[in-house]
Amino acid sequence: MAKNELEFKGYALTDPANHLDLKVTAFQPKSFSPDDVEIAITHCGVCGSDLHTLKQGWGESHLPLIVGHEIVGKATRVGENVMDIKVGDRVGVGAKIGSCMQCRPCNDEYENYCPKGISTYNSVYSDGVVSQGGYSTAIRAQKEFVFPIPDAIESRHAASMLCGGLTVFSPLKTNGAGPGKKVGVIGIGGLGHYAILFAKALGAEVWAFTHSPDKIEDAKELGADHIVDTNNKDFAQENANTLDLLISTMDATPQLPIKDFLTMLYVHGKLINVGLPDTNQPLPTLHAFDLVPNGALIGGSSVGSKKEAIEMLRVAAEKGVKPWIEELPMKDVRKALQSLGNNKVRYRYVLTQDLDNEKC
Amino acid sequence: MAKNELEFKGYALTDPANHLDLKVTAFQPKSFSPDDVEIAITHCGVCGSDLHTLKQGWGESHLPLIVGHEIVGKATRVGENVMDIKVGDRVGVGAKIGSCMQCRPCNDEYENYCPKGISTYNSVYSDGVVSQGGYSTAIRAQKEFVFPIPDAIESRHAASMLCGGLTVFSPLKTNGAGPGKKVGVIGIGGLGHYAILFAKALGAEVWAFTHSPDKIEDAKELGADHIVDTNNKDFAQENANTLDLLISTMDATPQLPIKDFLTMLYVHGKLINVGLPDTNQPLPTLHAFDLVPNGALIGGSSVGSKKEAIEMLRVAAEKGVKPWIEELPMKDVRKALQSLGNNKVRYRYVLTQDLDNEKC
Repeated sequence: MAKNELEFKGYALTDPANHLDLKVTAFQPKSFSPDDVEIAITHCGVCGSDLHTLKQGWGESHLPLIVGHEIVGKATRVGENVMDIKVGDRVGVGAKIGSCMQCRPCNDEYENYCPKGISTYNSVYSDGVVSQGGYSTAIRAQKEFVFPIPDAIESRHAASMLCGGLTVFSPLKTNGAGPGKKVGVIGIGGLGHYAILFAKALGAEVWAFTHSPDKIEDAKELGADHIVDTNNKDFAQENANTLDLLISTMDATPQLPIKDFLTMLYVHGKLINVGLPDTNQPLPTLHAFDLVPNGALIGGSSVGSKKEAIEMLRVAAEKGVKPWIEELPMKDVRKALQSLGNNKVRYRYVLTQDLDNEKC
Repeated sequence: MAKNELEFKGYALTDPANHLDLKVTAFQPKSFSPDDVEIAITHCGVCGSDLHTLKQGWGESHLPLIVGHEIVGKATRVGENVMDIKVGDRVGVGAKIGSCMQCRPCNDEYENYCPKGISTYNSVYSDGVVSQGGYSTAIRAQKEFVFPIPDAIESRHAASMLCGGLTVFSPLKTNGAGPGKKVGVIGIGGLGHYAILFAKALGAEVWAFTHSPDKIEDAKELGADHIVDTNNKDFAQENANTLDLLISTMDATPQLPIKDFLTMLYVHGKLINVGLPDTNQPLPTLHAFDLVPNGALIGGSSVGSKKEAIEMLRVAAEKGVKPWIEELPMKDVRKALQSLGNNKVRYRYVLTQDLDNEKC
């Protein structure tokens, strides 16, 4: 056995009734293809998606399952078709890990919207192997989903950018956040804190909306130009017809005051919702009339493309964007998941590798 | 009394229990301002909005109320601030008739989105006068809502363009309908037939979606490149991930298969809904996940601006766009409203003036 061959193992869900009780489990990676990069993982962020999946809130998961899709590590093996990465490079992987590279989205650099896309965990490859995430020693990913990390960004900072950051950077960029644009951010959590950081880095004027008074100072420090306490019943009226773009990072449950948020949009403004609650929690009921007074739009988004990830990392490097994170060794994942579940995280946990990844 | 002074009267709703029983009634117009144009009405289209309003489906109306907001006639009096229209010109008015001209939308040529906008009928001016629509002899309108009609377009054709046409032209234009774009039209009625005509005139490739098999031939004749019978249960799957833009002209009731329609959009495609059912009919229930697979958007729209109306009329004149209409004298409005209510209209009624509009 070659010295540098990796052992694939990680902190896996084995019993959904004990979703915080993850057990170190070996797994079978996908077969290595000429388009793949194999990565020895050093860091993995803890994302809300991980918790939804562990709790089976987005549907039943495969078992055993290792979650985690904010991955940074070193490339240990590089397929012959991979041009932009070499062994030893520091690279990252986000929430998607494969696509067909044949369809219109794939050809348009929207590989993150490939209808045959593979998620970083809990997807099934054509050979039946289940994709396993980054609370683990190593991962294999298709080259279009592997992002080189610029030297200026520390691995611990890069990790959670790759889902949390990209999920808000993509709609910010797609919808023109920049100088002269007024951008609102709803919810100051993991995604929301990134949305403030990146909207500012892109040059927009930023409104932060929060119902947690204890986050007001944080929002200020993150760079928001205006901070609005949504416990004030007139908050929407006071900002009516103002914003070009709203990024909603709160779980879009039936209780979200989405009609109030819509009234704050300027003509043809967009509310892009990136908060995904459990499947039994639909969007609030809307009437067609709710979108008429300002010709507003409500949209969704799915992480971001490699092109956007590279652009995000460039912006982060140039503007010195640093997420607010807390590091923990991977074995303490339970603590991270508990804090996330209780909304105590400020604003992202990043797990550091504590498993030996070499086969012995 | 000057010979050319107009008498303001029209076919008015007086008893909501008999919403088709309109009675000729005199009314008080708004006071004439230097920004106004007074118009002797020759034609008025019959719009779905008229029926919703008469039936009190959009809320209680003022009484007596004259509906109608697809108006063409001759300018009989022109305020001193009006530069683009002179007495005798053939002009039109759509569904809006006034705005503040002070706010950001008004300054951005989005006067149709002014929060203080006045609708052509059933709005209240600051002096308490209720706006009265075009099933009448005459109207006074603010210059930003009065559109010169090009010589190449007959009045009977222009009339229903000014709400029915503009309501679909505005989102087509705003969202880039043109060569290389794939545009779907949901529902082939008054608005839908205009959406096909204008999407083709703008150079887009057009899909028509209908659940009325008897409209398939019409859709072809209107110019649709692809016609899809939505009674076919696989209709959405067969067109998945294809369209850049969908204009939904069907009343967006809870029964509308909006999730199927969303799956037909390409990445960041938009479904712009212009069908407005009664206020007790919300949009179908959606989950945030429904907007994720293609990063789709759902939007609304409110008629169109003067700039867009002028552009629409230019396109119509240049490309020879002619709506499919049936003309009736104004006194036969009941027949028009009944056919509209029964979905028998193919595709728009236009009422012609039959009241004497000169004071005697």
